[in-house]
Amino acid sequence: MEFLVRSENRLPPDTPEQRRAELRAAERARAMQLREQGVLKRLWRVPGRNATVGLYEADDPARLHEALMSLPMAPWLDVTVEALATHPQEA
Amino acid sequence: MEFLVRSENRLPPDTPEQRRAELRAAERARAMQLREQGVLKRLWRVPGRNATVGLYEADDPARLHEALMSLPMAPWLDVTVEALATHPQEA
Amino acid sequence: MEFLVRSENRLPPDTPEQRRAELRAAERARAMQLREQGVLKRLWRVPGRNATVGLYEADDPARLHEALMSLPMAPWLDVTVEALATHPQEA
Amino acid sequence: MEFLVRSENRLPPDTPEQRRAELRAAERARAMQLREQGVLKRLWRVPGRNATVGLYEADDPARLHEALMSLPMAPWLDVTVEALATHPQEA
Amino acid sequence: MEFLVRSENRLPPDTPEQRRAELRAAERARAMQLREQGVLKRLWRVPGRNATVGLYEADDPARLHEALMSLPMAPWLDVTVEALATHPQEA
Amino acid sequence: MEFLVRSENRLPPDTPEQRRAELRAAERARAMQLREQGVLKRLWRVPGRNATVGLYEADDPARLHEALMSLPMAPWLDVTVEALATHPQEA
Amino acid sequence: MEFLVRSENRLPPDTPEQRRAELRAAERARAMQLREQGVLKRLWRVPGRNATVGLYEADDPARLHEALMSLPMAPWLDVTVEALATHPQEA
Amino acid sequence: MEFLVRSENRLPPDTPEQRRAELRAAERARAMQLREQGVLKRLWRVPGRNATVGLYEADDPARLHEALMSLPMAPWLDVTVEALATHPQEA
Amino acid sequence: MEFLVRSENRLPPDTPEQRRAELRAAERARAMQLREQGVLKRLWRVPGRNATVGLYEADDPARLHEALMSLPMAPWLDVTVEALATHPQEA
Amino acid sequence: MEFLVRSENRLPPDTPEQRRAELRAAERARAMQLREQGVLKRLWRVPGRNATVGLYEADDPARLHEALMSLPMAPWLDVTVEALATHPQEA
Repeated sequence: MEFLVRSENRLPPDTPEQRRAELRAAERARAMQLREQGVLKRLWRVPGRNATVGLYEADDPARLHEALMSLPMAPWLDVTVEALATHPQEA
Repeated sequence: MEFLVRSENRLPPDTPEQRRAELRAAERARAMQLREQGVLKRLWRVPGRNATVGLYEADDPARLHEALMSLPMAPWLDVTVEALATHPQEA
Repeated sequence: MEFLVRSENRLPPDTPEQRRAELRAAERARAMQLREQGVLKRLWRVPGRNATVGLYEADDPARLHEALMSLPMAPWLDVTVEALATHPQEA
Repeated sequence: MEFLVRSENRLPPDTPEQRRAELRAAERARAMQLREQGVLKRLWRVPGRNATVGLYEADDPARLHEALMSLPMAPWLDVTVEALATHPQEA
Repeated sequence: MEFLVRSENRLPPDTPEQRRAELRAAERARAMQLREQGVLKRLWRVPGRNATVGLYEADDPARLHEALMSLPMAPWLDVTVEALATHPQEA
Repeated sequence: MEFLVRSENRLPPDTPEQRRAELRAAERARAMQLREQGVLKRLWRVPGRNATVGLYEADDPARLHEALMSLPMAPWLDVTVEALATHPQEA
Repeated sequence: MEFLVRSENRLPPDTPEQRRAELRAAERARAMQLREQGVLKRLWRVPGRNATVGLYEADDPARLHEALMSLPMAPWLDVTVEALATHPQEA
Repeated sequence: MEFLVRSENRLPPDTPEQRRAELRAAERARAMQLREQGVLKRLWRVPGRNATVGLYEADDPARLHEALMSLPMAPWLDVTVEALATHPQEA
Repeated sequence: MEFLVRSENRLPPDTPEQRRAELRAAERARAMQLREQGVLKRLWRVPGRNATVGLYEADDPARLHEALMSLPMAPWLDVTVEALATHPQEA
Repeated sequence: MEFLVRSENRLPPDTPEQRRAELRAAERARAMQLREQGVLKRLWRVPGRNATVGLYEADDPARLHEALMSLPMAPWLDVTVEALATHPQEA
C-alpha cells in the first residue's frame, strides 16, 4: 500500500556544518537504499522549506514506521503520514 | 492492519423521523455485518455528538474505503481515517 | 512541473442518483483524457471520504487550473494545490 | 470507562543515548504493569512519529491521570485524552 | 465525574418564532429536570453567541450522552465535551 | 463575574526536582488564599496534562489578571481566559 | 469593563434587498441607542468583509450579551467577545 | 498604501449559467475600472479554486472596502485583507 | 488610519529580574512617547497573559511598523496587526 | 511563473548585534542580486513582525527553492510558498 509522507526537518540552524554534511550524506545513502527496496517511490522538495513530500510503499504502517525511523535524520524530522487508497481508475 | 475511524454524522436535523429511523436501522444492520466479518472491531460514541470513533481492521485502505462506503449513512458521514502501526509492546 | 492536488467533492448528498451517475461517468472520461495527455499522473482515494489526492504535471499553474476546471465535477470540488520542487535525489 | 489517549513524545533529540535507553526500558516496564492492571488495553504507534495512540480504561479521569503521570516519560509527553461513551451496538 | 460541555445552538435564524419559543420552553423544562437530578450543575452563556458552557456530572460518558441527547434542542446543538479530573486541592 | 481559566504549565521538564517542589508548594499556598478570598471557586485537572481548568470570580478582568499573576508559577503558565455570562436559568 | 467584539454578518446573499435595507436601518438605529447609552464606544469595519470590530463597555458579560442580542441583525451575526483588562499605563 | 486581498468566490454551484455569465461580465467590467483607477494593480488566480489573490492600492482601508464592495460578486465573496508595509529595499 | 495590534510578549521566564525591570521601564517610557505623538491611542491587557491589545493610529503600515519596532521589547514581541476601516456610523 | 512567498524570520532575539548586522547586510546584497535577475519582483514588510511577503518569478519551484535557499538568512526563515496562476484579465 502507498503512503504520502510529509517531513519537516527541524535540525537546529546552529548545527555545525560538518555535522550537517555528515547527516545529509547518511540520509541520502539510506534514502537510496529505500528506493532500491521499492519503499521510497518518489520524493519532492517543498519549495522554500527544509521539508519533503514523499510517496512510499510498504506492506503496512509498521513497516513504513521502521523505514522512516531508519533515516539518520529521523530524530529531527516532524513526519505526518497519510495512507492512500488505490483509485479504481488505476486498477 | 488497523485504522482509527472518526465519523461525524451530518444528516440534516430536519430529516423526517421515519427516514432517520430507516437509515439508523440499516446502518446498524450493516455495522453488524462488518463486525461479523472482523472489519469493525470496536465502536464508541463521542459523548454529546452524533459521531463515533471506531477501530477497524482491513487488508488495506482501499478495502477499508469500500467497507465505510457500504454504510447506508455514508453520504452524510464526514469521516477521517488514521492508519495505526502495531506497537512492539503488543507483538 | 508537478503539483499535488487534494480535492474534496462537495456534491450534495441529496443529488438524484441519475445525476450523480452522469457526473461520475463524465468525470471519469475527462480524467482519462487528462491521463492520456500526461496531465494526471497518479490518483488516490482518501479512505472514508469522497475525496482524492492526485499528482498532476503541467507547464505552469494556469495550465493546471484549466485542466482542473475542465472536470465536470469542478463546480462542487474544493481543491487545494501544492507546487512541488524536483528533489536533487531524483535528478 | 474507556479513554482514547494520544501521546507525543517531546524528549529532545540530543538526549544522550544511554538516558534514552533507560527511559524507554522504564517506560516499557511501567506500561506492562498498566496492562496487567487492565488500565492500558491497546497501544499503537503513529507511523513516522515518536507518538502513540492508546486505549485506556479507568474508573474516572483522575485515576487515568495518575496512571499517565506514573509513566517515566510523562514529563516529556504531550498528551490529549478523549473520553469515549459505550456504543449501544456493543451493549 | 464532572464534564465541561460547550454547546453551540445552530437552530436556523429563519425558524418561525412560535417554533423557537416552543423549543426554548421545552429546553428550559428539560434542563430544570437535569438540574434536579444533579446532572446539570452550572450553566453559563457565552456572551454574544447562542451558546452555553455547562458543568455536568454523570457516572460516565454514556450517561452524559443520554442526558445531552434528551434535550429538545439536541438535533441543532454542536456539542463538545471535556472530561475533567478532580484536582487534589479539592479532595 | 465568573471566568473560565485554562492554564497550561510550561515549566521545563529538566527543572530540578527541588525547584519544582518549592514552586508547587508555593502555588498551592497561593491558590488556597485565592480560594479563601472567593476568587478561585473550582479547579480541575485536564487528564494527562500538566494543565488545569479553573472557575474564578473577580470584579473585572483587571482583578482577575492580578490574581493570576500572583501565582508563583505564573511566568511558566500559558493562560486563556473566557468571560462567562450568567444564564437566566440561574437567576 | 470593556470588551472587544468581533461580528461577522451571515445574512444570506439572496436576502431580498428591501429586507436587507430594513434590517440595516434598524441595526443602525439600535447601534445609535447603544452609543448614546455608552455601551458601544467605537465601531470599525473589517475591510472587504461584512464584519465589524467594536469596542463595548458594560457592567458585566450578561449586560453585554443583552446589548448584542438587542441588535436586529443578531440572529445572523457570528459574534466573538474578548474581555479586556485595563492596562496600568492608562490608570 | 498596498493591500494583499484574498477572495474566495462562494457563488453556489447551482446558480443558473446565464446569471453566472452576467455576474462574471459585470465583475470583469468593474475590475477593469478599478485597474484604470490604479486601485487594482495585479490579480492572480489561485490554481484549482474559484478564488483570486490581488494586489490593491488605496488611500486607506475604508477606500479599499468601498472598492471591494463595488464588485458585483461582492455578496458572494469571502475576502481577507492584509495591509502591507513598504520595504526599505524598495524605497 | 487605525490599527488593532495584538502583542504577545515571549521574553523567556528565566530572564534575570533586573533585565526584566529595565526592559519594562524602557517599554513604558517609549509607549508614553507614542501616546504623546498620538500613535498609541488605547492599550489593554489580555487577562492572564503577558500580552496586550492596542489601538494605534499611523499614516500607513510602514509608519506603524517603525513605531512598533521602536519598542525596547520588540525583539521578544509576537505582534499581529489588523488594519481597520472607519465605519460610516462614526463619520 | 509567479510565486507569493511569505517568510518569517526566526533568528533568535539574543543573536549578537554584530552577527545580526552582518546577516542583514548579506541578506540585502543577495536580495538585490535576485532583483536584478528578475527573480524577486516585489517585497513588503508584514507590519509589526520580522517577516516579509514577496512576489517572486522563477521557471519552476526548484529554481525558486534555490533562490530562497541562497539567502544568507535562509536557515532561520520559515517560508511558505504559493504558486499563483496568471489571471485571464491580465493576459
